[in-house]
Amino acid sequence: MNQFLDRLQVDVPIIQAGMAGGITTPEMVAATANAGALGTIGAGYMSAATLKEEIQHVRQLTDKPFAVNLFATNLEAFSTDIHDMQQFLNQFRNTLNIDPGEDFIKVNDYLQEKIYVILEENVPIVSTAFGALSSVLMERLKEKGVQLIGMATNLDEAIQLEEVGYDIVVAQGYEAGGHRGTFDIKKHPNGSNIGLQVLVQELVDNLSVPIVAAGGIHTKLQLDALMKLGVSGVQLGTRFLVAKEAGTNDAYRRALIKANTGDTQITKVFSGRPARAIHNQFIQSVEEGGIVTLPFPVQNQVTKDIRSAGKEYAIADMQSLWAGQGVGAIQKEETIAAIIQSLTTEDLQ
Amino acid sequence: MNQFLDRLQVDVPIIQAGMAGGITTPEMVAATANAGALGTIGAGYMSAATLKEEIQHVRQLTDKPFAVNLFATNLEAFSTDIHDMQQFLNQFRNTLNIDPGEDFIKVNDYLQEKIYVILEENVPIVSTAFGALSSVLMERLKEKGVQLIGMATNLDEAIQLEEVGYDIVVAQGYEAGGHRGTFDIKKHPNGSNIGLQVLVQELVDNLSVPIVAAGGIHTKLQLDALMKLGVSGVQLGTRFLVAKEAGTNDAYRRALIKANTGDTQITKVFSGRPARAIHNQFIQSVEEGGIVTLPFPVQNQVTKDIRSAGKEYAIADMQSLWAGQGVGAIQKEETIAAIIQSLTTEDLQ
Repeated sequence: MNQFLDRLQVDVPIIQAGMAGGITTPEMVAATANAGALGTIGAGYMSAATLKEEIQHVRQLTDKPFAVNLFATNLEAFSTDIHDMQQFLNQFRNTLNIDPGEDFIKVNDYLQEKIYVILEENVPIVSTAFGALSSVLMERLKEKGVQLIGMATNLDEAIQLEEVGYDIVVAQGYEAGGHRGTFDIKKHPNGSNIGLQVLVQELVDNLSVPIVAAGGIHTKLQLDALMKLGVSGVQLGTRFLVAKEAGTNDAYRRALIKANTGDTQITKVFSGRPARAIHNQFIQSVEEGGIVTLPFPVQNQVTKDIRSAGKEYAIADMQSLWAGQGVGAIQKEETIAAIIQSLTTEDLQ
Repeated sequence: MNQFLDRLQVDVPIIQAGMAGGITTPEMVAATANAGALGTIGAGYMSAATLKEEIQHVRQLTDKPFAVNLFATNLEAFSTDIHDMQQFLNQFRNTLNIDPGEDFIKVNDYLQEKIYVILEENVPIVSTAFGALSSVLMERLKEKGVQLIGMATNLDEAIQLEEVGYDIVVAQGYEAGGHRGTFDIKKHPNGSNIGLQVLVQELVDNLSVPIVAAGGIHTKLQLDALMKLGVSGVQLGTRFLVAKEAGTNDAYRRALIKANTGDTQITKVFSGRPARAIHNQFIQSVEEGGIVTLPFPVQNQVTKDIRSAGKEYAIADMQSLWAGQGVGAIQKEETIAAIIQSLTTEDLQ
């Protein structure tokens, strides 16, 4: 375990998940680092230029190390066959007073450019989701001594990550909020959804690299129990979403605090990829609308203007309210320092 | 914890799940009791007369206490609107050379009669699924000092069980094999499916009665981790399915040993109630057939002849292969004594 802490240069075995979409502010990442845990910039949807700014901003707020989270596979998507979905979604655009959707979209996540930024800026840790980085990119990062954290939702994926040289594997349980990290969505259309304690036991039994547990974790008791099961650390997303330093909008915060344990579900309506969110009107309307969701990241792109308007107008029902099954226990906003303290100090439990 | 062991009169905090359908032979229940754990007769679908025989048979093999598992709500079903499903299922009956299905079925589980047998035979422990027993039946059992174990899939259900007087609550995680214990299937059509570690944390935080963890458990390490999380014991089903003493048929045993962790799914095709089974041809055919499953227990009754023929002809694809997500780790048949020993002895892990 000390080896694990040394490798990540942290004091406590806690990783703040690299949630994408404006959640992980520089203040959040730096506060996590300053509290002795691993902060992570969620850069999945960022441009390389924005990532560079964010890294430099975090550096102004802390001299501790931190990580950048990326999508391991290129998101490039050029699609013209989205007319029906756009027509369907125009009902929400009408309600929100925004322009009708266009029938052509373009997505590029500039993965290589972001890797170059990470190398230039000497970021010591990179974590990825949805697959393994290509061997070319892995080599560049390895040459610079960057520690690589990959996310797996089943044993096959975990073995792939270990084999190509990832240093640490995050076991993402079924309980986790946001996107399922599952590599092959054609093989697992609704995600590979294994309960955390089963997945951890299997990875601990079969891998040599340190395992980090993720999914539904929000207490020190869970952290202790999972360490007993053999993990080297834990990764939390949902509990950090209501941190005072997080970029989470107010309507989303209120929904998180209000939600009960059973209020989340796995759905593809927002992005085309299975992801766990608090049930709301958008999910219900699309699922009952009988329209097939477009593949990731096309569906993500076509719902983006609606979700943005939902944020702007503080309408939780028109946002993707990513949350894990631990959300029921989230009942107030706290500082990052208080969150880390409650996860590591016996007396505060 | 000692209080928990005293209450169940066992040496180790392990419960053999009361799996219905001929799995829990008297030899299995007695071997579990003799190994110091709680054996359970799975009497959900049994007649009162058969239950009486089974109890007396177990008594011949052990003088240790054991439990009987029942469905807490009456299964009575009289249905005539099953023509379409019977027509659909006749394709399987053709293949299996069995008679076409009839359009009228009758189901009665004789719950009250079985409670009387339990009282007559002085069985000390009763466990139930799918709800709480009626107050009348509860009172009869309480008067005799019978310990009551209820199963919950969410906090609301657990609170209900505690409030009506259950002594112990089993937290059934999403990982568990067989039927989801969810009380209200109209409210949760696919079951209430909360990952075990989240559910346990929530129940431990909110209940006073001892909590038992169930779902995907197959190692001592998981047992230890869950005890750390605050449970008083664990309940296992899948690992006991391949016990030499179990009534599991050979085709089912082979499927359990062959299956990997990701090979199970929750489905309603067998019984009309969501339940976790190993994916097979029957599941695939019915789910792809675009036919709506009948409610429980009607669907259970109409598929019964097909599943029975599947057992008789050793065709795993025509059976309900109930299994939890821990099934990937099940790789050989063992005696009950060896299973209990490996779950309680450090060196065998």
